[in-house]
Amino acid sequence: MDYQRVFTQAIDRLHAEGRYRVFIDILRNKGMFPNARCFAGHNGPKPVTVWCSNDYLAMGQHPKVIAAMEEALHDVGAGSGGTRNIGGNTHYHVDLEAELADLHGKEGALLFTSGYVSNEATLSTIAKVLPGCIIFSDELNHASMIAGIRNSGCEKQVWRHNDLEHLEELLAAADPEAPKLIAFESVYSMDGDVAPIHAICDLADKYNALTYLDEVHAVGMYGPRGGGISDREDAAKRLTIIEGTLAKAIGVMGGYIAADQVIIDVIRSYAPGFIFTTSLAPVLVAGALASVKHLKESSIEREGQQAAAAMLKKLFADAGLPVMDTVTHIVPLMVGDPVKAKKVSDILLAEYGVYVQPINYPTVPRGTERLRFTPGPAHSEAMMRELTQALVEIWSRMEMKLAA
Amino acid sequence: MDYQRVFTQAIDRLHAEGRYRVFIDILRNKGMFPNARCFAGHNGPKPVTVWCSNDYLAMGQHPKVIAAMEEALHDVGAGSGGTRNIGGNTHYHVDLEAELADLHGKEGALLFTSGYVSNEATLSTIAKVLPGCIIFSDELNHASMIAGIRNSGCEKQVWRHNDLEHLEELLAAADPEAPKLIAFESVYSMDGDVAPIHAICDLADKYNALTYLDEVHAVGMYGPRGGGISDREDAAKRLTIIEGTLAKAIGVMGGYIAADQVIIDVIRSYAPGFIFTTSLAPVLVAGALASVKHLKESSIEREGQQAAAAMLKKLFADAGLPVMDTVTHIVPLMVGDPVKAKKVSDILLAEYGVYVQPINYPTVPRGTERLRFTPGPAHSEAMMRELTQALVEIWSRMEMKLAA
Ligand SMILES: Cc1ncc(COP(=O)(O)O)c(C=O)c1O
Ligand SMILES: Cc1ncc(COP(=O)(O)O)c(C=O)c1O
Repeated sequence: MDYQRVFTQAIDRLHAEGRYRVFIDILRNKGMFPNARCFAGHNGPKPVTVWCSNDYLAMGQHPKVIAAMEEALHDVGAGSGGTRNIGGNTHYHVDLEAELADLHGKEGALLFTSGYVSNEATLSTIAKVLPGCIIFSDELNHASMIAGIRNSGCEKQVWRHNDLEHLEELLAAADPEAPKLIAFESVYSMDGDVAPIHAICDLADKYNALTYLDEVHAVGMYGPRGGGISDREDAAKRLTIIEGTLAKAIGVMGGYIAADQVIIDVIRSYAPGFIFTTSLAPVLVAGALASVKHLKESSIEREGQQAAAAMLKKLFADAGLPVMDTVTHIVPLMVGDPVKAKKVSDILLAEYGVYVQPINYPTVPRGTERLRFTPGPAHSEAMMRELTQALVEIWSRMEMKLAA
Repeated sequence: MDYQRVFTQAIDRLHAEGRYRVFIDILRNKGMFPNARCFAGHNGPKPVTVWCSNDYLAMGQHPKVIAAMEEALHDVGAGSGGTRNIGGNTHYHVDLEAELADLHGKEGALLFTSGYVSNEATLSTIAKVLPGCIIFSDELNHASMIAGIRNSGCEKQVWRHNDLEHLEELLAAADPEAPKLIAFESVYSMDGDVAPIHAICDLADKYNALTYLDEVHAVGMYGPRGGGISDREDAAKRLTIIEGTLAKAIGVMGGYIAADQVIIDVIRSYAPGFIFTTSLAPVLVAGALASVKHLKESSIEREGQQAAAAMLKKLFADAGLPVMDTVTHIVPLMVGDPVKAKKVSDILLAEYGVYVQPINYPTVPRGTERLRFTPGPAHSEAMMRELTQALVEIWSRMEMKLAA
């Protein structure tokens, strides 16, 4: 057994397919987002404008968030020092869980170290508690949901993306007595489309299935209080479990679920990914708490983001760039080739001080490689015009087609 | 299918077994660790002394750590805003990885959102890259290693705890051509014993197996630079992968592995638990960086911890308390019954202002329920004498046996 050879081959395959990843090394400038600095090897320590951050509302630099984190840092220190059960349960955790439960109109909420872990731990655990459970999973579900479903060891049925007929076909064909769980997302982050939540809940009612909704790319951004698409469409109470992250629109780090108290208690008591790990650092929890509270009351950020997204889509479309028509804040530009997507991104960074990461397989299917822009309230019209101009120049230089 | 009933039954089982967990709600007082405040429902907002924190060296309140975190907070903001590949790779991450690689004398290192995730993601991924891999796992390995091994889907052979003969028996019986990985911990956190690292590496050499060592309860605390037991015993270079956490002796939050560059590259490129999640918040990375750097050069914390552990063990033993004789900083007091362990802990908190969490199943085997003390450089001799006195009083009151 030659281990070295196997490992080297695994890496060589990535190079051969043009999808070996080099991480760009940046530091954002607090208070000046989307501005950042880049380190050597890319464009040198030159200023760049970040166009692909998931700090969608720039809450990661909001004065209230920073102040809350600083206060927690000085009040209780750096880490929590323990798991939730052994010394790592602080008053910040308790408060944030209450705040998140309220945000989604649920009895309880539970914090995890990330959105990834909340999906993996919850899905793998709930299905184990329900022997014989069948999970119905949208084909575009995020890797963390897929991991949780696989690790549950239970039967999985994949329905075509947002296809209600297909979902119903599968539900109808399944054993009526078997426990069932429908798992899906509200905003799909790479295509920017939205799930028909009420229609899915109708099917869940008809076939006595539980529902699990990932609102990671919607929390903070949709609904009168930022409770996500389920808040906007007044569907939260119809969902069994709502999952979210504190690392995107909330601007910090961590993940959570909100649900009935008994479900929260089951996951809290049985999920290894919740139990056997140090709890979120209080400094993060304090920041997230300030952010969630702020976004419950303030809609300026949400409105700014929607306005920016609408403007960027229009500028791209008017310039003939292949912008995908989305109903959300996500603005993808289809390239369809991993090498070209990377090339456009490299030129943008080196020559125009624009940072947008190419999105390649396995994050999106092969042949749908793209650039994904996430304009927000902090991106100005001037920045958008410059960006559009830069893209048009690169598109011509690379002899890629612009619409008439 | 009555979901409510199934969930309620799952919770009822825990109550019936006396192992339903209620999280105690505390806030530590920075700069005064191990002092903390407790919230209502326990002993009221009275001051408590924390005896079960895994912030082993009180680095979570070290001025250098707090200063570094505050600086990062003001320099770059709260969260990273993206995965490592999409906007979430900061210069702090790059620097800390270099620092950790150096700490363990390895070519590279890779950060994860927690120690749990580093174990789960690395073990499940490496075994998938090596088709037919057999993992040899110490029976007392942590839940996160067990999760990674199970999720790898590969064959697992469990060897009796620290039993070299049994390990060799299993290795010798396996297909000589099959890829093999031996997974174990250096310090076992509930019993406080230590693995024979060199002897295990000898077996790995003999049977051409890779080795994976979890140093979570040793990093920062053992070895001249805090590289763990493998540092102390000069064994780091013999190990394939060393895993650690930033959430215990380092005092912050996060996890990592250190290994040859090609292995780091494989995990970085293939592990979903690394790829598809927002990177560690820069504020945490900055704090961990300051902490690791400090502990490389300063041994005062390590020496203070060892002195405190030795003294507490002696005080307990002299008083006839059933202290387990460990070779590390961990001081477990065996109770052997979940209800009694909880009772002692409740009295300590309510009457003596002492917080030590009872450790019950599934964290330890049934029948070995215990109290686990983690004295550190910040626990004074007076605190230890008071604690011992309190325990002796409770032991007599509960009519539990003290040694002569
Ligand atoms: C749909 C979806 N769910 C979950 C996650 C994981 O969230 P987190 O970054 O908090 O781990 C992500 C992205 O990272 C995501 O896109
Ligand atoms: C042996 C061991 N490995 C890994 C972990 C997980 O580390 P973290 O708390 O950083 O997730 C723990 C405890 O939490 C542990 O005891």
